Amino acid sequence: MSTQPFAFQLEAQDGEARAGVFHTPHGDLLTPVFAPVGTQATVKAVSPRDLADLGASLVLANTYHLYLRPGDELIRDLGGLHTFMGWDGPMLTDSGGFQVWSLNAINQIDDDGVTFRSHVDGSTHRFTPERAVQIQQNLGADVIMCFDECSDPHDRDYNRRALDRTMRWAGRCLDAWDNRNKQALFGIVQGGIYDDLRAEAAEGLVRLDFPGYAIGGLSVGESKEDMFRIIEGVTPLLPVDKPRYLMGVGTIPDLIEGVARGIDIFDCVLPTRIARHGAAITARGQINIHNAVHQKDPSPLDEGCGCYACQHFSRAYIRHLVKSKEILGSTLLSIHNLHALVHLAIDMRQAILERRFADFARQRLAAADVRYG
Amino acid sequence: MSTQPFAFQLEAQDGEARAGVFHTPHGDLLTPVFAPVGTQATVKAVSPRDLADLGASLVLANTYHLYLRPGDELIRDLGGLHTFMGWDGPMLTDSGGFQVWSLNAINQIDDDGVTFRSHVDGSTHRFTPERAVQIQQNLGADVIMCFDECSDPHDRDYNRRALDRTMRWAGRCLDAWDNRNKQALFGIVQGGIYDDLRAEAAEGLVRLDFPGYAIGGLSVGESKEDMFRIIEGVTPLLPVDKPRYLMGVGTIPDLIEGVARGIDIFDCVLPTRIARHGAAITARGQINIHNAVHQKDPSPLDEGCGCYACQHFSRAYIRHLVKSKEILGSTLLSIHNLHALVHLAIDMRQAILERRFADFARQRLAAADVRYG
Repeated sequence: MSTQPFAFQLEAQDGEARAGVFHTPHGDLLTPVFAPVGTQATVKAVSPRDLADLGASLVLANTYHLYLRPGDELIRDLGGLHTFMGWDGPMLTDSGGFQVWSLNAINQIDDDGVTFRSHVDGSTHRFTPERAVQIQQNLGADVIMCFDECSDPHDRDYNRRALDRTMRWAGRCLDAWDNRNKQALFGIVQGGIYDDLRAEAAEGLVRLDFPGYAIGGLSVGESKEDMFRIIEGVTPLLPVDKPRYLMGVGTIPDLIEGVARGIDIFDCVLPTRIARHGAAITARGQINIHNAVHQKDPSPLDEGCGCYACQHFSRAYIRHLVKSKEILGSTLLSIHNLHALVHLAIDMRQAILERRFADFARQRLAAADVRYG
Repeated sequence: MSTQPFAFQLEAQDGEARAGVFHTPHGDLLTPVFAPVGTQATVKAVSPRDLADLGASLVLANTYHLYLRPGDELIRDLGGLHTFMGWDGPMLTDSGGFQVWSLNAINQIDDDGVTFRSHVDGSTHRFTPERAVQIQQNLGADVIMCFDECSDPHDRDYNRRALDRTMRWAGRCLDAWDNRNKQALFGIVQGGIYDDLRAEAAEGLVRLDFPGYAIGGLSVGESKEDMFRIIEGVTPLLPVDKPRYLMGVGTIPDLIEGVARGIDIFDCVLPTRIARHGAAITARGQINIHNAVHQKDPSPLDEGCGCYACQHFSRAYIRHLVKSKEILGSTLLSIHNLHALVHLAIDMRQAILERRFADFARQRLAAADVRYG
């Protein structure tokens, strides 16, 4: 077994689905893995001990948000993100590229970088590839991301220009990345819904030789057909011995379809965001706990679920909490939804190791298609 | 040792301060004890496993709130409060008397009961002593309270009339109380700041022979001198072999002064309420985590505190959470503040058992007088 920093070992492959181990300074990540998102250095409504208890192994935090508040230098001075937020497992930070785009904060984008306004106080800031890497080095996550330009996935001209910039920025990020034993820098494949741009991006990044590769700019409004086709086209171009991360994807069907196409790592705010609106992910579709049908229901959110919420509380109780605007309602639903995706990834890994992924995927996809509640 | 339901055994007395054991169907309560308040069947921002972890043994819930939402019959049908909210330790419900008064919900009060408006939807409801006992039987807490009339502590005429009513209602509650092996009914001593009314109330209730006695209508605007004098006057009139509960009191100095005057049980929403506003209880006074002085402070909320928040997180991190309006900020501050009062009671118990309560009280009161932050 390699102990080289950030080595990725493929343990089994079943069709395109992969089970592997990704070595990080904060422990070995078993893949496939789903990462809860802690945008502001906390997974909303959930404590680090809740995260560990529900089986989370990798946690993501957002560079854009933490740079603005409380500041990456403050976090560095307090020992880095792991110490700051009390999470001693593997962590990943994004580069801020997606946030300056999706939060409509951009003032100006040029070949050197992006000038944007803070969503907190309206002040003006500038990210360049070098600055995004520096901030992520201050934050200190195990995996950091290249600074990229995001774009409307259906605008070919824009994607053409943005991709050129993203590829040049990837090279600059590589040059700026100087603590290679402590942090792995991943390249991000962009290119919208255009197969040729995606292929060009993947091949270009592979030539630069990153410790891992992400597929970005998906799950942003394109069709599922487009999303799955792009993944299917990109993963064969990526090296077998490097981890592959599909950014911002987090539903049961999308995780299964992603793993079936060779993805190893996922993250998404969805499970905790919908939790705060009263929605629970179940193996048979999503339920809305506000619905009157749950008012006197003594059953758990999802039969057979092993999470803390399902082991101790009824739908009736969680509905009462949500109706009464009690914080514990958000906490229990967040724990449950994260557990659902984290354990889906764990279960997929087991199915791959046992070479029964196709059957597993078929059954879970069929069940997830049932919508009720 | 007695195994009679709701027996109270005095283990040690040091001055007026008492250490005892109160037997309940959900376990033995070691006194003095501080009870976190779960108004709507949840201690705000804290899960039952957090409560157990921070050392809580007794949890209070509010009859008025739970009667209105989700309804006492729903809770009964789902197995009672313990099952509903996932707390298997001792529980106590108040009677709703204080809420209909303090929430200004009263439409009409007469000798038979109180008609009031719901704070949730404005609908009209009626509590009588019998109804308050019935609702509390549906909720199923270990300790239930007599329905009482609360009043301005400084209005003697009002207190005179209210006390007469409260005493008659106490008799009616006793008559309505029919599951005496499962629930203990406590009488509530009222009478405002008037020593003679308080004595009359205490002596009258003791003649009715309750399994325990509460002192109500304090910490509602009267001076500390009045509050402590009333406690001092009442406790000697109560039987030594029954628990004594001071309702709604929850600061470090008040708990110490209460125990010094023979109180066994306390509850208060204060620690969790101020937590949600960014205040932390420390051994040396209260701090406001919003203050800029905490911005880069790597130290815990309270040096030497053993709670989850202090063991894992800095003031700087908790300040960041609160500034960013993250739920975990309320959770960590609530855990810390509850731990402070729960463990103050545990530490007082130990000091009483070791016959050093006076020294302990002097030191803690002197420290708590230092205000900063």
